[in-house]
Amino acid sequence: MKEYSFLDDYSEGCHPNILGALSRTNLEQHMTYGLDSFCEQAKQLIHAKLNNADSLIFFVTGGTQANLIVTSACLRSHEAVVSASVGHILNREAGAIEATGHKIISMETSSGKLYPEDVQLAVDSHKAVPHMVKPRLVYISNATEIGTIYSKSELEALYSCCKKNDLLLFLDGARLGTALCSKYSDLSLGDLAKLTDLFTLGATKNGALLGEAIIINNSSLMDGFEIQIKQRGALLAKGKLLGIQFLELFKNDLYFELATHANAMAEKISQGFVGLGHKLLDDTQSNQVFLILPNDLIAQLEHSFSFYTWAPHDEHHSVVRMVTSWATPEAKVDSLIALCDSITNRD
Amino acid sequence: MKEYSFLDDYSEGCHPNILGALSRTNLEQHMTYGLDSFCEQAKQLIHAKLNNADSLIFFVTGGTQANLIVTSACLRSHEAVVSASVGHILNREAGAIEATGHKIISMETSSGKLYPEDVQLAVDSHKAVPHMVKPRLVYISNATEIGTIYSKSELEALYSCCKKNDLLLFLDGARLGTALCSKYSDLSLGDLAKLTDLFTLGATKNGALLGEAIIINNSSLMDGFEIQIKQRGALLAKGKLLGIQFLELFKNDLYFELATHANAMAEKISQGFVGLGHKLLDDTQSNQVFLILPNDLIAQLEHSFSFYTWAPHDEHHSVVRMVTSWATPEAKVDSLIALCDSITNRD
Amino acid sequence: MKEYSFLDDYSEGCHPNILGALSRTNLEQHMTYGLDSFCEQAKQLIHAKLNNADSLIFFVTGGTQANLIVTSACLRSHEAVVSASVGHILNREAGAIEATGHKIISMETSSGKLYPEDVQLAVDSHKAVPHMVKPRLVYISNATEIGTIYSKSELEALYSCCKKNDLLLFLDGARLGTALCSKYSDLSLGDLAKLTDLFTLGATKNGALLGEAIIINNSSLMDGFEIQIKQRGALLAKGKLLGIQFLELFKNDLYFELATHANAMAEKISQGFVGLGHKLLDDTQSNQVFLILPNDLIAQLEHSFSFYTWAPHDEHHSVVRMVTSWATPEAKVDSLIALCDSITNRD
Amino acid sequence: MKEYSFLDDYSEGCHPNILGALSRTNLEQHMTYGLDSFCEQAKQLIHAKLNNADSLIFFVTGGTQANLIVTSACLRSHEAVVSASVGHILNREAGAIEATGHKIISMETSSGKLYPEDVQLAVDSHKAVPHMVKPRLVYISNATEIGTIYSKSELEALYSCCKKNDLLLFLDGARLGTALCSKYSDLSLGDLAKLTDLFTLGATKNGALLGEAIIINNSSLMDGFEIQIKQRGALLAKGKLLGIQFLELFKNDLYFELATHANAMAEKISQGFVGLGHKLLDDTQSNQVFLILPNDLIAQLEHSFSFYTWAPHDEHHSVVRMVTSWATPEAKVDSLIALCDSITNRD
Repeated sequence: MKEYSFLDDYSEGCHPNILGALSRTNLEQHMTYGLDSFCEQAKQLIHAKLNNADSLIFFVTGGTQANLIVTSACLRSHEAVVSASVGHILNREAGAIEATGHKIISMETSSGKLYPEDVQLAVDSHKAVPHMVKPRLVYISNATEIGTIYSKSELEALYSCCKKNDLLLFLDGARLGTALCSKYSDLSLGDLAKLTDLFTLGATKNGALLGEAIIINNSSLMDGFEIQIKQRGALLAKGKLLGIQFLELFKNDLYFELATHANAMAEKISQGFVGLGHKLLDDTQSNQVFLILPNDLIAQLEHSFSFYTWAPHDEHHSVVRMVTSWATPEAKVDSLIALCDSITNRD
Repeated sequence: MKEYSFLDDYSEGCHPNILGALSRTNLEQHMTYGLDSFCEQAKQLIHAKLNNADSLIFFVTGGTQANLIVTSACLRSHEAVVSASVGHILNREAGAIEATGHKIISMETSSGKLYPEDVQLAVDSHKAVPHMVKPRLVYISNATEIGTIYSKSELEALYSCCKKNDLLLFLDGARLGTALCSKYSDLSLGDLAKLTDLFTLGATKNGALLGEAIIINNSSLMDGFEIQIKQRGALLAKGKLLGIQFLELFKNDLYFELATHANAMAEKISQGFVGLGHKLLDDTQSNQVFLILPNDLIAQLEHSFSFYTWAPHDEHHSVVRMVTSWATPEAKVDSLIALCDSITNRD
Repeated sequence: MKEYSFLDDYSEGCHPNILGALSRTNLEQHMTYGLDSFCEQAKQLIHAKLNNADSLIFFVTGGTQANLIVTSACLRSHEAVVSASVGHILNREAGAIEATGHKIISMETSSGKLYPEDVQLAVDSHKAVPHMVKPRLVYISNATEIGTIYSKSELEALYSCCKKNDLLLFLDGARLGTALCSKYSDLSLGDLAKLTDLFTLGATKNGALLGEAIIINNSSLMDGFEIQIKQRGALLAKGKLLGIQFLELFKNDLYFELATHANAMAEKISQGFVGLGHKLLDDTQSNQVFLILPNDLIAQLEHSFSFYTWAPHDEHHSVVRMVTSWATPEAKVDSLIALCDSITNRD
Repeated sequence: MKEYSFLDDYSEGCHPNILGALSRTNLEQHMTYGLDSFCEQAKQLIHAKLNNADSLIFFVTGGTQANLIVTSACLRSHEAVVSASVGHILNREAGAIEATGHKIISMETSSGKLYPEDVQLAVDSHKAVPHMVKPRLVYISNATEIGTIYSKSELEALYSCCKKNDLLLFLDGARLGTALCSKYSDLSLGDLAKLTDLFTLGATKNGALLGEAIIINNSSLMDGFEIQIKQRGALLAKGKLLGIQFLELFKNDLYFELATHANAMAEKISQGFVGLGHKLLDDTQSNQVFLILPNDLIAQLEHSFSFYTWAPHDEHHSVVRMVTSWATPEAKVDSLIALCDSITNRD
């Protein structure tokens, strides 16, 4: 039994406030299928942070589910998605997008982010109508799969490129909390309501048992969306389970508080290891830390802690990924750094 | 604000044992994506009740989700589902089955149940190959949409007919608890593991916040099933949410205790109204009561209780449906009957 | 070897003019994928008969192909087709529509035609959003599967009902020639361009080797349509094969001349049998004749002619269907009637 | 008006024998939907060349259609296709494969061919079940998109790798004639019936108006295949149009004679240009010639001939592609070379 796992940000349960609210209201009877008052209040709290009076909010249970519903709802069958080659929908969702009938056009990028030139290239290389699909939905993640985040100017440029090319911009926010609370970020929920056609706001990785909000800012995409949710099996009979969780997370900005904690723990790990003479693969922008460590140090750390060995770096070093979360106790971070210190100095 | 709602069996939260277990284990770190020990133990408890050493168990969040995954996993694209015309998949799942590419062949039946002659007719009327789809998956529900249940001999006959015609038999058990605990039922979970190719075991309507178990008895259907679950967005990152619930429900047979309570409450309503001189549309076999009541009585009962007016019966009477659940307090049933008594005697 | 088959209208090859044109142009090099000058000219000839300057014309090879492309191009995934219960797409296309992800809502009708009240009922019975699909594309055939045809006032009423309910109207014209040339018809191609959102104009059953024209009148449906055609495998490399055929058929109105011949042959059969004392099941409106004949007469006719025994009528009679075509020699019709005469008078 | 086009191998009509046979049989009545005697005889001629008594043969109209039917028939929804990155299904079929619900895994290759190591890499990089699709159908073309061909030993190694990994091997033979008739080829139709699970045999690019044969060698894939063909709109009412063409092409091995001519014309172009001091990008293995030519020569040749400028080569040269066919007159090849000669020597 190891002391702590930094493998991911969904190994624990949920913030205690949520369990409290579930218990308090447990035997009350409420409207079903998301028509309950908790969903209503949660949507109001989120809506108040958006810059767009028209934005519509829906709750579903998971990220793959959200991605496939958005794709299916946005696209006609000859239209395609554009994604960075590291995109979750390309590699880790078991063909969920293709199963709705749509091709994903993969663009090679170095940072995990899509830039206007990538999008333009995707458009320009699909001009051979009718032999090619039509690029239509641009998929990005913030934070990305590798923990990088978009700046406001990057998102503005991308959105502008999308509009110029008659493309929809969809931002996957499975880890949106840590992205927005990053010290490198100058984006707000309000910005996203203006600079995307749709985005998701993930709670599973930021304090909830399960739950993603889908936020639609482009009114042409709203018609029938709730039928799409039902059709894909994503409408909970007891929809209040999602409403209660989002309500608790957006009361008093708990959502942002939790994400800020996750980021702080990641930064503490970064600084701790750097202070001990180790190197980061890249700046730590959110709650994922990529460290270049000696292989024997890795082996010794693994006796007490779980984390992911990402890739070999050179003959004697590998890159490891450590993920923190809303639930990561600071004491475990301290313990990790102390262990590294003792190993490093002992060796 | 009404005193109580008999509209459905999913207006409350979950059995308190579940909240207790969620709270006790909340901040523990566990394996993700359903590889946790709770899922493992829950599957062992369920498996012990099956007659089939090979049966495999998967947990997903909802009934529509389970139905569409089963259809997609079982069928090649030219194969179709056979369902009674009242089937949930035909009328209340927003085209979820067709969205996976498969036709549903609808058979008119009076009882909500499919019989061997219905299935044989579906097969015989689809012989015009290659102009017609091939019937392949027979979909039934137990309890049915209208609360009726299958007997063991009925299921044996149906399964035998399916095997004779190279068909798969799938039983939708969204309300399996109340079906199996019906005093009219002679079926067990062990029987289902022998007499179906797959079935679901619903928890959302019997004590859980959400959750359906898919149980596969036919080993030819197992390969890749977990990828299908992921592909349809049904794999929870925090899979322990499902594991903990099924574990609590199958500890000490709580699942059956809850279903038995729901049935008892339905029977008490039936007997109460019959005792007051009213008539049932049909025997109450599980947790749904269909009563023929005078329209003015209905209007007066609705001041205090919610229920569904199903259909007009004659000039002065309508059929109403009252649904009970694991959570229905007996006092509310007593209060309903007392109100009916007072109205009936007063008039 | 029988003398002649009245089983269907696609047992022969094509009108000799088509073979002539294919031969004359065979070794010429032309643009591929339908960009050739024959397609261009054929479209101009057809377009000149339409009342709608915006109408766009596409050529594909078959009716099922046309139907599935239209469905896929017109609908988002939560939207459904409405069809009469005898519709070809429901019963004889092997689940082609469902394979594109869409449900077909079947409406019982007696005449094979859909009326405004049928469409309204389909809409009204699918109000339980989000649990139900949204009816969006109304599918009709002219002539219908049983040879009946729409009048202009019927089509006007239906189109008006569709527009009132935000529905698209699609007319399957696999046998449009014989429908428009029926003496009972007051519809023209120009009317169809005004009174439908899309329709097809079938050539396979009226003189071509293969070929259906899809005509789109609603400009909101045109975008990307040619990609949909390619995506479904319906774009011929040697598209001129279709262009040449439609060009020959619409030169000097050969298409209508051929359909008129088919109808005349059907009427001659009708009158011949009626003159010999037999009864029609219904008026013969196009090129399908439904006769009520004694079973022993049927058996004797079948020694020399092929036709389809549709259904039993009473103890001693059955309904048979005889189909005529552009290629049916009048001598064969005479021979059929003469045989009937000799059998009837002999008996 | 240019003298001749070397743009592709489908700008002309069909071999005159085919028009002859169509004319001879035009007004005969035959069985419909491919049950006619021409289809039967054509299948017998093809079957006699296969090494596999079990092989089943189906005729459809086009290559994209064949590819999407094969994919849909072979795969369950969580299974994927593996293709070389230049594969036609990836780039030039408008998302036809994804529209059937399946992901294509693209493997970078230099030659347009897939090798066992590519396939093994695809399998090994998709082990993260259930988060990834399961590679199942390996798609190759012979000749490839860039005119290269597989040797028997290459195909044996690939098939063996597929079987070891429980994969199906599908060979797209849109240009199979020129591949098998290449002087570099040691493969026969009989080899393909042993070394693939399915393959297609293209006629559109080798003498027919339209037509691809799908040949299934793996008996586990045959069930329901004809329903799949109907479901995708690929079953011709007048199926004899395909039967007659394949019958003419396989009588007296005309198919191979035509392909041999196409290859000879390509070789003549190659040798002619090489003789004039120009370079080939690669050996000419089938009916596609890739030449490195000075840009001003290209411009002058284009006054009289059409061909495709494939890519820039260096500052003063580009790569051009010239495609020959069964219909290419030798005189046009001579004229092309003579023009090149006169330009080259004049300059």
